Amino acid sequence: MSNYLVTGAAGFIGAAVARNLINQGNKVVTVDNLTTGFREAIPDGVQFIKGDCQDPEIITSLQPFKFDAILHIAGQSSGEISYDDPLYDLQTNTQSTLLLLKLALETDCRKLIYASTMSVYGDHPNEPITEEASTFPKSLYGVGKIASEHYSRIYQQYGIETTSLRLFTVYGPGQNMENLRQGMVSIYLEQALKNKHIIVKGSPDRYRDFVYIDDVVNAFLAALAKPQISHNVYNVATGVRTTVEELIAVVQKILPFEVSVEYSGSTPGDQFGIYGNCSKIKKELNWYPEVNLDIGIGKMVDWVLK
Amino acid sequence: MSNYLVTGAAGFIGAAVARNLINQGNKVVTVDNLTTGFREAIPDGVQFIKGDCQDPEIITSLQPFKFDAILHIAGQSSGEISYDDPLYDLQTNTQSTLLLLKLALETDCRKLIYASTMSVYGDHPNEPITEEASTFPKSLYGVGKIASEHYSRIYQQYGIETTSLRLFTVYGPGQNMENLRQGMVSIYLEQALKNKHIIVKGSPDRYRDFVYIDDVVNAFLAALAKPQISHNVYNVATGVRTTVEELIAVVQKILPFEVSVEYSGSTPGDQFGIYGNCSKIKKELNWYPEVNLDIGIGKMVDWVLK
Repeated sequence: MSNYLVTGAAGFIGAAVARNLINQGNKVVTVDNLTTGFREAIPDGVQFIKGDCQDPEIITSLQPFKFDAILHIAGQSSGEISYDDPLYDLQTNTQSTLLLLKLALETDCRKLIYASTMSVYGDHPNEPITEEASTFPKSLYGVGKIASEHYSRIYQQYGIETTSLRLFTVYGPGQNMENLRQGMVSIYLEQALKNKHIIVKGSPDRYRDFVYIDDVVNAFLAALAKPQISHNVYNVATGVRTTVEELIAVVQKILPFEVSVEYSGSTPGDQFGIYGNCSKIKKELNWYPEVNLDIGIGKMVDWVLK
Repeated sequence: MSNYLVTGAAGFIGAAVARNLINQGNKVVTVDNLTTGFREAIPDGVQFIKGDCQDPEIITSLQPFKFDAILHIAGQSSGEISYDDPLYDLQTNTQSTLLLLKLALETDCRKLIYASTMSVYGDHPNEPITEEASTFPKSLYGVGKIASEHYSRIYQQYGIETTSLRLFTVYGPGQNMENLRQGMVSIYLEQALKNKHIIVKGSPDRYRDFVYIDDVVNAFLAALAKPQISHNVYNVATGVRTTVEELIAVVQKILPFEVSVEYSGSTPGDQFGIYGNCSKIKKELNWYPEVNLDIGIGKMVDWVLK
């Protein structure tokens, strides 16, 4: 039995990771400010501390726990929303990481896994993108995330094993269906189910690399299991390029009623397209994406309708 | 006559830039927290507001000024010191930039020039380093600085002309001679003058690209004068590679007494060596370094002894 801190366990990815760790018989503590997460989403058995991960007092209060590892998943996860309050974005996504790295150092916690993002790359001519590509984030959100990765890399020199998982477009059961500004799949699916009409902000030719939530959880577990002698960055991606139009076609195919589509406007800081090369994580962490988009969307629809 | 905000005018570089702008007949306001700067270093004629640039209240209070341009020079400028208080480093060097970019946007200020650093590069096999090189900062300090550059680049899309000047190792009259943890030239010179003995933390083979303060001021003025249609990053460098040993030889040659040298230990996050390609700033801003190291150190010694 190990003792983990999973930040953001009231959110989509944090809850899924925490649930898995609890099911394996571990102890899990979470810090969550419930800004975008929900108290009822926190899995049973998780010890919940309400607060901000960017709050030095909250993080200092965690010192007695002596965690075996920290999985830092909390944060504001939308490029679009980072423009609403840039200061909050920096604090919640970057200051938090710095404080958690300091906590790890001070409490002799040897491992920190950071939920990073494909948004650190920005638009890139060479695809599928590898971890060696240069980082030119297009959104304020991406800036804060790459800074957190750099901090993690630097703290590795103090003997903390740090890993950054660059999550591509994560979707699946548990995703917040109320938030129409965050999560491409959930946004379109929610509109389809509610209005039988999808309004897309941006071009149908934009594309993403969609990763199913269970595969993402497995990436965290794989990173946790593997000793890391240097800071590692991994794309958590499928290597499959799916356009917005193709995604919507899958949604239309699965739903038992007609869904119309309308394209209008755009989103600031949005990346036109990105998909990931996942050779490194396959090779080094023995991780493979197991759920393809058709099956994943099908499972998600089942979950929403239930 | 223009109306400028020069942050950090109680510090070495900020004071020199502010003095020059005042001498040209402009209005200058400064915000400085006097953490490393000195009240008496603020040039006559500069309106002084004591406070932190990372404090939202202070920055909001600047709204009525309607600056023509912001020169953001305040900040913690040592890689070594960034490890003492990583949170302060992030706030003073990055949160401050974000708040000033927001201020520029809110007050229709069309120009922001950021004092960045060669520390954004990290160690690099290809030298002299060009602005296109990848950014892998080795110190916490460098992480906060590259994040500020990214933010500046992103705000350019709102019509603010943003320029980041990557300052190499700046030295010259006005440098803080009391602070033995900041500024390679001032550290060695102060020890030589005080003890006739220099203790060097790190290898004699480390090297730097030393830029004289007047040349740095000219780089700010050149960036201010030039309309920028996209975010630009410039090395403020001489293209000359000088080892620690060579620097100390210059100091020994200039001082009228014997100075002994001792090498011991190292500094966390220190870069082994870096020097810059300055073709871009020469070509685009018509800027040339005018003061070589022998002359610059001579002027600095004259200043210290006076």
